[in-house]
Amino acid sequence: MTTAADWWATSICRMEPGVVELRGVPVQDLIGSTSFVSTIWLMVRGTLPSPKEAALLEAALVSSVDHGPQAPSIAIARMTATCGVGLNNAMASGVNALGDHHGGAGQQCVEILNDIVAHQSDLDDAVEEVITRYRTTNRYVPGFGHRFHPVDPRRDPLLGLVDRAVADGVVAGRHLQAARAIETFLNRGRTKPVPMNIDGATAVIYAELGFAPELARGLFVLSRSVGILAHAWEESTSGMRNKGPIPRTVLPAYRAEPPTG
Amino acid sequence: MTTAADWWATSICRMEPGVVELRGVPVQDLIGSTSFVSTIWLMVRGTLPSPKEAALLEAALVSSVDHGPQAPSIAIARMTATCGVGLNNAMASGVNALGDHHGGAGQQCVEILNDIVAHQSDLDDAVEEVITRYRTTNRYVPGFGHRFHPVDPRRDPLLGLVDRAVADGVVAGRHLQAARAIETFLNRGRTKPVPMNIDGATAVIYAELGFAPELARGLFVLSRSVGILAHAWEESTSGMRNKGPIPRTVLPAYRAEPPTG
Amino acid sequence: MTTAADWWATSICRMEPGVVELRGVPVQDLIGSTSFVSTIWLMVRGTLPSPKEAALLEAALVSSVDHGPQAPSIAIARMTATCGVGLNNAMASGVNALGDHHGGAGQQCVEILNDIVAHQSDLDDAVEEVITRYRTTNRYVPGFGHRFHPVDPRRDPLLGLVDRAVADGVVAGRHLQAARAIETFLNRGRTKPVPMNIDGATAVIYAELGFAPELARGLFVLSRSVGILAHAWEESTSGMRNKGPIPRTVLPAYRAEPPTG
Amino acid sequence: MTTAADWWATSICRMEPGVVELRGVPVQDLIGSTSFVSTIWLMVRGTLPSPKEAALLEAALVSSVDHGPQAPSIAIARMTATCGVGLNNAMASGVNALGDHHGGAGQQCVEILNDIVAHQSDLDDAVEEVITRYRTTNRYVPGFGHRFHPVDPRRDPLLGLVDRAVADGVVAGRHLQAARAIETFLNRGRTKPVPMNIDGATAVIYAELGFAPELARGLFVLSRSVGILAHAWEESTSGMRNKGPIPRTVLPAYRAEPPTG
Repeated sequence: MTTAADWWATSICRMEPGVVELRGVPVQDLIGSTSFVSTIWLMVRGTLPSPKEAALLEAALVSSVDHGPQAPSIAIARMTATCGVGLNNAMASGVNALGDHHGGAGQQCVEILNDIVAHQSDLDDAVEEVITRYRTTNRYVPGFGHRFHPVDPRRDPLLGLVDRAVADGVVAGRHLQAARAIETFLNRGRTKPVPMNIDGATAVIYAELGFAPELARGLFVLSRSVGILAHAWEESTSGMRNKGPIPRTVLPAYRAEPPTG
Repeated sequence: MTTAADWWATSICRMEPGVVELRGVPVQDLIGSTSFVSTIWLMVRGTLPSPKEAALLEAALVSSVDHGPQAPSIAIARMTATCGVGLNNAMASGVNALGDHHGGAGQQCVEILNDIVAHQSDLDDAVEEVITRYRTTNRYVPGFGHRFHPVDPRRDPLLGLVDRAVADGVVAGRHLQAARAIETFLNRGRTKPVPMNIDGATAVIYAELGFAPELARGLFVLSRSVGILAHAWEESTSGMRNKGPIPRTVLPAYRAEPPTG
Repeated sequence: MTTAADWWATSICRMEPGVVELRGVPVQDLIGSTSFVSTIWLMVRGTLPSPKEAALLEAALVSSVDHGPQAPSIAIARMTATCGVGLNNAMASGVNALGDHHGGAGQQCVEILNDIVAHQSDLDDAVEEVITRYRTTNRYVPGFGHRFHPVDPRRDPLLGLVDRAVADGVVAGRHLQAARAIETFLNRGRTKPVPMNIDGATAVIYAELGFAPELARGLFVLSRSVGILAHAWEESTSGMRNKGPIPRTVLPAYRAEPPTG
Repeated sequence: MTTAADWWATSICRMEPGVVELRGVPVQDLIGSTSFVSTIWLMVRGTLPSPKEAALLEAALVSSVDHGPQAPSIAIARMTATCGVGLNNAMASGVNALGDHHGGAGQQCVEILNDIVAHQSDLDDAVEEVITRYRTTNRYVPGFGHRFHPVDPRRDPLLGLVDRAVADGVVAGRHLQAARAIETFLNRGRTKPVPMNIDGATAVIYAELGFAPELARGLFVLSRSVGILAHAWEESTSGMRNKGPIPRTVLPAYRAEPPTG
């Protein structure tokens, strides 16, 4: 019979008066000795990472903190911050927008990389089968293509770190291989390139480090929360009230016109 | 006249095709060389911290990641995760609960510490004036008292790190002094102690490092987001659907009774 | 080329200084003459309903306003209301939990009813094909089964109103027929009944009235928002701070135990 | 000692297998006989309204359902709806923005009207004292002024309904009197008028009907949720993905410029 203690049981923490343990580790043994990123790893995975594993996760988290106010999560957090709510509420609304289309590409890309790595066939055949099958129901292959950057300045630094981690024996390199093979496959016969983008590069890291696909989304949320906080904070000092999406000098009145297209 | 570019202007980032700059720093110069915590500092403060400043912030962030499912932010995230929404939505609902009572103590404590440090009088008089004034409108002094832990295992490690930072000349130590003076003042004539708690200890760190009070709340949100993610993720793998607050074996049916008291 | 006006174009409202039109109707022509429910219909459908159509929608909305604090949306709103945020923030967190498992049954049931009504075969064959296919990927048929009520006291009153609306020629009755046929099919050979529940009964109404399946979820959200408001409001007057899911007298400390099962 | 049943006790509903009672009324006694608006009143107040009381509340709720996509709550819901989350999540983010500046004016105006009605002095002196005191800490008097409409088309219809309700003895008319007296006071010696606006007119209704100030915000949230739903639904059918605040044809790249002013 389920008790209240069963109902709220968890392996993540133990709290008793005077005791705070995170995944069995007394918190005082983490404070001052363990990085925030290693603590993140401990909390979601259950054990601490090696320093080199942590460094790779660190790079992925640093890379995704912001992409400017044209990203809905950022604009939404900024607008909410002018409406007379707490900073946490503005952050929550920004995070709430990191859904399948806005934050889900990394998760979906990890799933694709895992499918290829687990495939029976050799790499090129696996890529062809998995990507062809994926494209029967999806227009875009998550992790590839340039929505804004012809060359994303974060891609090569991230992939370079993965190469080094492979050379150091920190990760196996199979997901990196798979991602590069996808890039090759997608670019066959094209004049206009389809490069691996930031979602793909971070997906390679999350997959190589063994994070479940859904955690790729969760970790992206932690990362993007930093930009969401910074922008909400900046906007909260602007003196604006009830900030809409466009200034009235650009859109003086609101006129209804049926959506185009 | 306000243009669309003015409307969404920010000092935080610059995005152009091929360019991602965070506070003027090209992101590729951060990836692999700068920690996540130093990046957080850069994003909210505008400049990079020294390594010792970053270490102090790191400890504060590590210390606050979780306090178990009796914290509403954690329970809410777990429950939402069983309702058929995305992981980011479960996280958002958890963050949305980090309001004045749940995440605001650190912010309020930073304000009090700042008031005391800025006060004209000597320390003991400043403490007496500020705390007495605060208590005319508030029952609790944020940062002090034990709601759960008689001795919070995170308090001494954190304050020890601040002591070392003062000795190293990293921070001035005035807010730490103020906090200790508040603790002395609150305990005058009491048999049952009123210790500085985790909100007070982290507030000392945020104040010593020069973070605005509202950012103390924002940084707490970033920290607590880690526990929120871990718990939402764990619950999402439980197979529960529409998890309520209490199992039906404990509360078989819902009967209305007027609230007690 | 997309202008700012295009970007935010809508058919729903027109605002100019001195003008507020909802779906082309001047708002002053609605105030005092048009019910809130008819206004809801106008806003989401684009035209006003007949009085009898509005009455049927009214009944569906009234029926779903609350199901008590064991529903996560209600518990979450109550808990958030004690955390020092605004009433709207507590309501938002409750609404955020009305996902696929908690508020989605009505939407999914409308889809199933639509599939059966559109089916080429006669009713019984259509029911068998659609339900059998649905059950290959889903354990529960949304709209049927008693999770709490052996006999839901809302079911017969709602279905009775649909019967009357069919008799009056207000709705065609085909979705009602389909739902009753599903109930018959699911109960074949069972001693323990599988009745149509509140999600099924309201889905019949939304489908008969021609609402798209996603709007069935949206309308359920409007309805449940009433209970969410009432509960958040009541809890906000309780004097509780940071209300967790279980009182400490039942769960004095938090101990980590691995989840059962 | 607090039990689990105590912890979640409420006067709002009673649920047992086969029983759903809202404020003591069996729900089947409401379905088909009681309007949605009267049910809203029952849920938040505890008793049913008279038909004329309900009609006044109906008008207030109808009047506030939308104000177009320049309102942050509406823009935020539309943007979130393109990010691959559920319709309820898009609605939640919209509601989360209805804070002190965006949805709070009605609540604050009710408080002011209550202060004036309860004042010892005669009406004009009460108005002068309350408004002068309010303006020492606030720039705007909530409920008055035209942020968009020189003449709000909803104002006169709403106030006309209150006049009729006073004539019918449904409400006392003292809050209406107070609001008109504020309008007179604010316009003394001005060439440019400061009219009562929609927040003021609905505040008059909520105050005359005896709703607590916080419930004025909650009821506004229920009303605005209708527009939020309609807009989120419309945008979800647009085919847009990750809709930002401004089209790239207007703001092609994002360039950081320090905020003006």
